[in-house]
Amino acid sequence: MADGSRNDLKVAIAGLGTVGAGTVRLLETHAEIIAARAGRPITVAAVSARDRSRDRGIGLDAYEWFDDAAQMAATADVDVVVELVGGSDGPAKAIAEAALENGRHLVTANKALIAHHGTALARTAEAAGLQLNYEAAVAGGIPIIKSLREGLAANRVNRISGILNGTANYILTRMHEEGLDFGEVLKDAQELGYAEADPTFDIEGIDAAHKLAILASLSFGIPVDIDAVHIEGISSINAIDMVFAAELGYRIKLLGIAKRTEDGIEQRVHPCLIPADAAMANINQAFNAVEVECDFADTVIHVGPGAGAGPTSSAVAADLIDIARGTRMPAFGVPADALRERPKVPMSDHVGRYYIRLDVMDKAGVFAGIANALKDNDVSMDSVLQRGHAPGEPVPLVLTLHENREANMAAALAEITALESVLGEPVVIRIETLPG
Amino acid sequence: MADGSRNDLKVAIAGLGTVGAGTVRLLETHAEIIAARAGRPITVAAVSARDRSRDRGIGLDAYEWFDDAAQMAATADVDVVVELVGGSDGPAKAIAEAALENGRHLVTANKALIAHHGTALARTAEAAGLQLNYEAAVAGGIPIIKSLREGLAANRVNRISGILNGTANYILTRMHEEGLDFGEVLKDAQELGYAEADPTFDIEGIDAAHKLAILASLSFGIPVDIDAVHIEGISSINAIDMVFAAELGYRIKLLGIAKRTEDGIEQRVHPCLIPADAAMANINQAFNAVEVECDFADTVIHVGPGAGAGPTSSAVAADLIDIARGTRMPAFGVPADALRERPKVPMSDHVGRYYIRLDVMDKAGVFAGIANALKDNDVSMDSVLQRGHAPGEPVPLVLTLHENREANMAAALAEITALESVLGEPVVIRIETLPG
Repeated sequence: MADGSRNDLKVAIAGLGTVGAGTVRLLETHAEIIAARAGRPITVAAVSARDRSRDRGIGLDAYEWFDDAAQMAATADVDVVVELVGGSDGPAKAIAEAALENGRHLVTANKALIAHHGTALARTAEAAGLQLNYEAAVAGGIPIIKSLREGLAANRVNRISGILNGTANYILTRMHEEGLDFGEVLKDAQELGYAEADPTFDIEGIDAAHKLAILASLSFGIPVDIDAVHIEGISSINAIDMVFAAELGYRIKLLGIAKRTEDGIEQRVHPCLIPADAAMANINQAFNAVEVECDFADTVIHVGPGAGAGPTSSAVAADLIDIARGTRMPAFGVPADALRERPKVPMSDHVGRYYIRLDVMDKAGVFAGIANALKDNDVSMDSVLQRGHAPGEPVPLVLTLHENREANMAAALAEITALESVLGEPVVIRIETLPG
Repeated sequence: MADGSRNDLKVAIAGLGTVGAGTVRLLETHAEIIAARAGRPITVAAVSARDRSRDRGIGLDAYEWFDDAAQMAATADVDVVVELVGGSDGPAKAIAEAALENGRHLVTANKALIAHHGTALARTAEAAGLQLNYEAAVAGGIPIIKSLREGLAANRVNRISGILNGTANYILTRMHEEGLDFGEVLKDAQELGYAEADPTFDIEGIDAAHKLAILASLSFGIPVDIDAVHIEGISSINAIDMVFAAELGYRIKLLGIAKRTEDGIEQRVHPCLIPADAAMANINQAFNAVEVECDFADTVIHVGPGAGAGPTSSAVAADLIDIARGTRMPAFGVPADALRERPKVPMSDHVGRYYIRLDVMDKAGVFAGIANALKDNDVSMDSVLQRGHAPGEPVPLVLTLHENREANMAAALAEITALESVLGEPVVIRIETLPG
């Protein structure tokens, strides 16, 4: 054991990657600050990782080593297990369950795990009188879970939206600022370490969807349900869309949005055009932001770094401090058994505005076909922009639509795409008008 | 008693103004949500205000009425007293002390009370094992106290800054947007209800200073000390300063800033020029924002409505929910006895950049006198801007200075002001370069 004091909160850390090593470093660096604020010391007692010999810039000799993290979670002499292995199933799930089934609190930074199994884990934790904390799973160093679960707990939340993936926001920022295409920036981001070798989760919106499903559960008292999230990524967006968006007074951001409507709860992750002067439009680089619209506190926005060893370990340590102080509450604000399914609003029923970019042949009569397709499907148009003039050649054409039901927009778009003079696949981006 | 259930958290509310009535309304409106999140019902049991008969849009019949709020705090059959009377001393202090000395938790929205007596009240509360919560005292509905006391608790804070007064921010926003002078906007703000009949606390920076002293205590583990805050208001700023600031690439905001320096802790409230693209520069109208710079979580910004019945009662109710759940911690994050005095950095030792606006006679040789005064005091200049040309008449002249010690700047300025060709009092605004 790391420390003989009986009053310590003893912690086992599973996973010693960037965040795991960062958490060990934070708990050591600020041992005194943390003990003062937690009311007692928090000490690492056991660790587990794939490779014991790897140099992580931290000494591990003081900690009990386990080759098997799930065994550590089940048997180590600790009060809390911190799961930093990642992945929705496999080892991470085994560690989480082993901790909770053997009387240890669980702290995790694992959004995939919580998005897929959060409700079940919460139920297990609550039945055992244990705490399940996951501040680091959403928006890194921003204490947004705490704000929703505690700070804004007296409110009815009507809408929550966020820039929840730093990699996607970094790519969109550079596309906007430098006029580059998606592929170029992605390649550069990978070389600079902003994007992973396999960037699918980040650029296809999956990581953001994990986080949104968690925020939606906290906001609306519904079971976490990743399958209820409509997901689109940013890979179809191109430099020309940035130019058109700016011309129309917008910026393009990948947002996660969960919203209470008359029909139920909408949960969606997709690129959005948002007004250039909205607070969210000016969140750049790898920053995250979460905007909570609620009935008494109005609109509260949190902005900060969404990832990285420092911010993420700050959130993990805050969860540990809460446990050390004795702060106890259900994982999703209300007991897992009190979470209630609400009707899921399918995207076809979404009502909103749209930006549509087509490649059309620059010849007479093209627009009549488009206008008829819109009219046939009861879709009302706001504006048309055409860039360049090249008779007989393809040119980009941008339509913006007023508020329409998505099913009608899609039907019109199918007709438009089938027109002889419309080439290739259209790019459709939803327009969101946010407060602030 | 309002409710027979033995498990209720019973609350007495002292003060039924906008916030008091709003809190009663919130606790009634969201009784069900709040009970689910708090783990038990929170019910108002007793109330006190100056005038029982005033129409507040809420019924009071269900609550025990007290003419004397301090007597209520001492004797009502409640678990928590909510002090919403206001003012640093007098009735508010009596109510707070009566509550804590008689075994009742204290929740307050009163920044003046906490800024003046926070440390003493915390000591009383902690000695009695009672909770002192004051989320509503700073930045209305933004859960910034919770973020500092809990969410970012594992960090060493290096700097905290904020737009902490909605009235001042509203006035500055309108001055910037409409080119109006301070006096005109103030008058309009008073008519619209954005500023009080006696606006001193808001426009002279006192209200912001109360809040800053509280944030500084939480951030740096020092006793709350309103006397350590250097305070300047916005009444000397005029429309022309907005124009010059914009031309130089800045916006003018009233900021509260507390900062760790090599010499100790700086605490100051004054107007600032901040870069026009900084996050803080774009917080407009009556919004508040708080930016926390810390070592692991980096920079986290919170934005939201800083006042009003809804946001403030949201914060009061969150404090009550925490108490109902059993969340306990020292008022300032660490026990009151562990708060440590740190050296106070006087403004004369502040090192920063400056904007100085002078009225000078438009004639040859004026600038030589100014340049000599700067040189004599080792003050280095960045730029000079002169607006208009009117030989023999007074014209505004703006200097910006590089980083200088404030004492040197002040000495140079005294010499400059004494020059025959410099008329009236100069306007000095500090330039802050913020991250984000």
